[in-house]
Amino acid sequence: MSESRILNAALRGKVVSADEAAAFIKPGDNVGVSGFTGSGHPKEVPQALARLITAASERGETFRVGILTGASTAPELDGELSKVNGVSLRMPFQSDPDCRNRINAGDAWYTDVHLSQSAQNVAWGHYGKLNVALIEVTAILEDGRLVPSSSVGNNPTWLELADKVILEVNASMPAQFEGMHDIYTVALPPHRKPIPLVKSDDRIGEPYLRVDPNKVVAVVETNCLDRDNPFKAPDEDSRKIAGHILEFLQHEVKKGRIPADLLPLQSGVGNIANAVMAGLIDGPFNNLTAYTEVLQDGMLDMLRSGKLVHASSTAVSLSRKAFDDLVANIDEYRKHIILRPQEISNHPEIARRLGVIAMNGILEADIYGNINSTHVLGSKMMNGIGGSGDFARSAYLSIFMTPSLAKGGALSCIVPMVSHVDHTEHDVQVLVTEHGLADLRGLAPRQRAKLIIENCADPKFRPALTDYITRAGKTANGQQTPHLLGEAFDWHLRALRGESM
Amino acid sequence: MSESRILNAALRGKVVSADEAAAFIKPGDNVGVSGFTGSGHPKEVPQALARLITAASERGETFRVGILTGASTAPELDGELSKVNGVSLRMPFQSDPDCRNRINAGDAWYTDVHLSQSAQNVAWGHYGKLNVALIEVTAILEDGRLVPSSSVGNNPTWLELADKVILEVNASMPAQFEGMHDIYTVALPPHRKPIPLVKSDDRIGEPYLRVDPNKVVAVVETNCLDRDNPFKAPDEDSRKIAGHILEFLQHEVKKGRIPADLLPLQSGVGNIANAVMAGLIDGPFNNLTAYTEVLQDGMLDMLRSGKLVHASSTAVSLSRKAFDDLVANIDEYRKHIILRPQEISNHPEIARRLGVIAMNGILEADIYGNINSTHVLGSKMMNGIGGSGDFARSAYLSIFMTPSLAKGGALSCIVPMVSHVDHTEHDVQVLVTEHGLADLRGLAPRQRAKLIIENCADPKFRPALTDYITRAGKTANGQQTPHLLGEAFDWHLRALRGESM
Repeated sequence: MSESRILNAALRGKVVSADEAAAFIKPGDNVGVSGFTGSGHPKEVPQALARLITAASERGETFRVGILTGASTAPELDGELSKVNGVSLRMPFQSDPDCRNRINAGDAWYTDVHLSQSAQNVAWGHYGKLNVALIEVTAILEDGRLVPSSSVGNNPTWLELADKVILEVNASMPAQFEGMHDIYTVALPPHRKPIPLVKSDDRIGEPYLRVDPNKVVAVVETNCLDRDNPFKAPDEDSRKIAGHILEFLQHEVKKGRIPADLLPLQSGVGNIANAVMAGLIDGPFNNLTAYTEVLQDGMLDMLRSGKLVHASSTAVSLSRKAFDDLVANIDEYRKHIILRPQEISNHPEIARRLGVIAMNGILEADIYGNINSTHVLGSKMMNGIGGSGDFARSAYLSIFMTPSLAKGGALSCIVPMVSHVDHTEHDVQVLVTEHGLADLRGLAPRQRAKLIIENCADPKFRPALTDYITRAGKTANGQQTPHLLGEAFDWHLRALRGESM
Repeated sequence: MSESRILNAALRGKVVSADEAAAFIKPGDNVGVSGFTGSGHPKEVPQALARLITAASERGETFRVGILTGASTAPELDGELSKVNGVSLRMPFQSDPDCRNRINAGDAWYTDVHLSQSAQNVAWGHYGKLNVALIEVTAILEDGRLVPSSSVGNNPTWLELADKVILEVNASMPAQFEGMHDIYTVALPPHRKPIPLVKSDDRIGEPYLRVDPNKVVAVVETNCLDRDNPFKAPDEDSRKIAGHILEFLQHEVKKGRIPADLLPLQSGVGNIANAVMAGLIDGPFNNLTAYTEVLQDGMLDMLRSGKLVHASSTAVSLSRKAFDDLVANIDEYRKHIILRPQEISNHPEIARRLGVIAMNGILEADIYGNINSTHVLGSKMMNGIGGSGDFARSAYLSIFMTPSLAKGGALSCIVPMVSHVDHTEHDVQVLVTEHGLADLRGLAPRQRAKLIIENCADPKFRPALTDYITRAGKTANGQQTPHLLGEAFDWHLRALRGESM
């Protein structure tokens, strides 16, 4: 069965084992791998590479590589390579526990960049030469074109830039993925043209990846599903957050600012995002569309319900149950899903043109509306900024969502000053917690602070926040954004000592 | 002579005095005024409005208005209205001392937004209704179309949205401005299309503003030049910064990343920017272009030298001497200058498509590459973010420039942690001081810190910065971005006490 996935004779002649393929990767190489949010990453060659690294280590040799991906991958890639300390450089997003530990131990350099910019950054040589592309595909056509897998990510760029290409052809991916993708690539300046996409369901490219067959050094046949991307039913806080957002969107429609079928939705990953999707299924809006970077269970549910008529994404990242549904009904789903390169799915030009409604989770917000998406207590990397900046800066609505409390109530997610800034006051329009929603549009910093404290902070932390801003207002050196720099991080310092904020 | 500037009979019939025109503005109104970087702002009606406000105050009445502009204006607008405390809300950028004082005293709300977003924010109603548009123009054609003045700014949007329109027709502006502008407006979602601009000198609109003549309540004839926008010869530090940038651009060309005639230049205002322009006149690059928001003396010099073949901007903001040169040679300059609405001059879609080389000044940077462009010691507003975010996020190169020291050497412009973040680590590629340039592309935070301390910080502050990061590396809770939150702002606290950092 798997043989039928490699119709090109020349490439069929390059089929080797994962171990033989991994041997093409050399110490110090930069490897551009497929993968976005635990989907479409190579499954076997990374593990073979980890074995090579272990063997080198046992010989007393250093064998480390740079790993450039689309976004997060899964244990068999980021996990295995991090366990053997084989990653010298990682970009642009990760969420694997072992990978995160290496980054925070100082063992791996991690550059946390906007996902839409990652391809061009590599093309411009920010990371040096791209030596190898290691890409999972669903099939290889007779003419050598490639049917992409469950994510597109940066694959077109990696295939174009790399000296050597290794393909994993994954027979577990449904052959009917063919036709679901839309591959369009962007030139570098001064040769760029307008991207001709004006609706989320516009097709502007072709459904295949292209590769110079002479660069392909190895083809590996695999048969392994993507990880079972966890999906939890929305908890109480998430349902409340979703409720506030739905109410707000109804208000926006009523005001005549957006059409009754809204504008294309962008939704980050996780529990709250899924709760919003669940809320939309039961909500008053119809004929919805999505222009987003990852299609998760919640959005598949929306497609099935008929409320969502189209989703543009760069990846499908599903639980096993949802994936089975996708495969079982793929001829129907394929009419409603387009997977694009992340340079297009996340392109600010398109986000601003379409006027997306961007909804992303965060770690903490401050009273003036600055957002920390990435760093725990200022220094420790959680995952990365991902696509949130691509969307939020250019969206019609940039909505950031968080429960008001963390660590069982010990920590407030609303603080006097965030310990790291990923989204500045200039880019944050709406903040939502389970307590309520703060519409910050058009407001000056002190006006925002009042709303955020009253509507979003947990009641038990409101008096301390109000006290901070009141005293800052009396003593700070200016009233635009009153701060007490001597105690702005006292809340975080208490948390670092293991105390309640 | 001035009469010949109003060729439309109906509008000629609406000519009144500035005082009569100002009477159309009511307490609580939002007034959209023209003006960008001290050019093209209305000259007489704002002063008449200030007199009305004073009179109201003397009667014990409150008379305050919201002032929405393109960017900064000049003393006769922001200054006069602030002196009488007549401004309740100001957006999106200012640089007037009286206006700044009102903001920092807490007397006026100031919302500091990306200049490219200011028009759409008002269209979406973030500030409520736009009651009045008060726009300076050069002339009114027989059919009622308007020849814009020395800046375009947000004028097309203000003219479209306002209930009432007041025009100042300024006979001091050269009649030959006609044809220099290119007015193209952007629809709101879901009706947006690709902006068909692929080169800085593309014309995509028409050279006139349009207004519904029935909305025009008053026309005022004026005869007053823009302010003499100060131009200082570059100082030693600025020349050194310019030298580092020129050397770096040569390096980029040599690497084959950009063409020999570079990519379109964007340049912020001020001494350093002018030094870079002066350096380019003597430098090795030819056939340069600019895609920027304001054309100052330095860029006019470049046009005159022939090194710069075209400049796209939204304003010409010149010294009197340079303005005289512009007027004397306007038929020649008009072939090389296009003035656009700021939604287009600053549009991220275009900045990314063209791959601009963005060069902007700052207040302070931190060792990890975060930038504070706006807030003195965390709380006090200086001017605003202006267009720096529009360009930096989407540029081919985002270069930020500052002398390493301020206040006669007492303050370091490179600090452990910036006291306000306007540009995050994700958006800052190059930092330059007189000591050198740090190319941060592709680097993780600790790698950036090493370069910034070694290349950019003043030598007398380097040991303390190195000490900070060394101790943070030993004690922080993660090695991605090591910070000591208990002392991150100690440098600013010393400055607040009047000590050296």
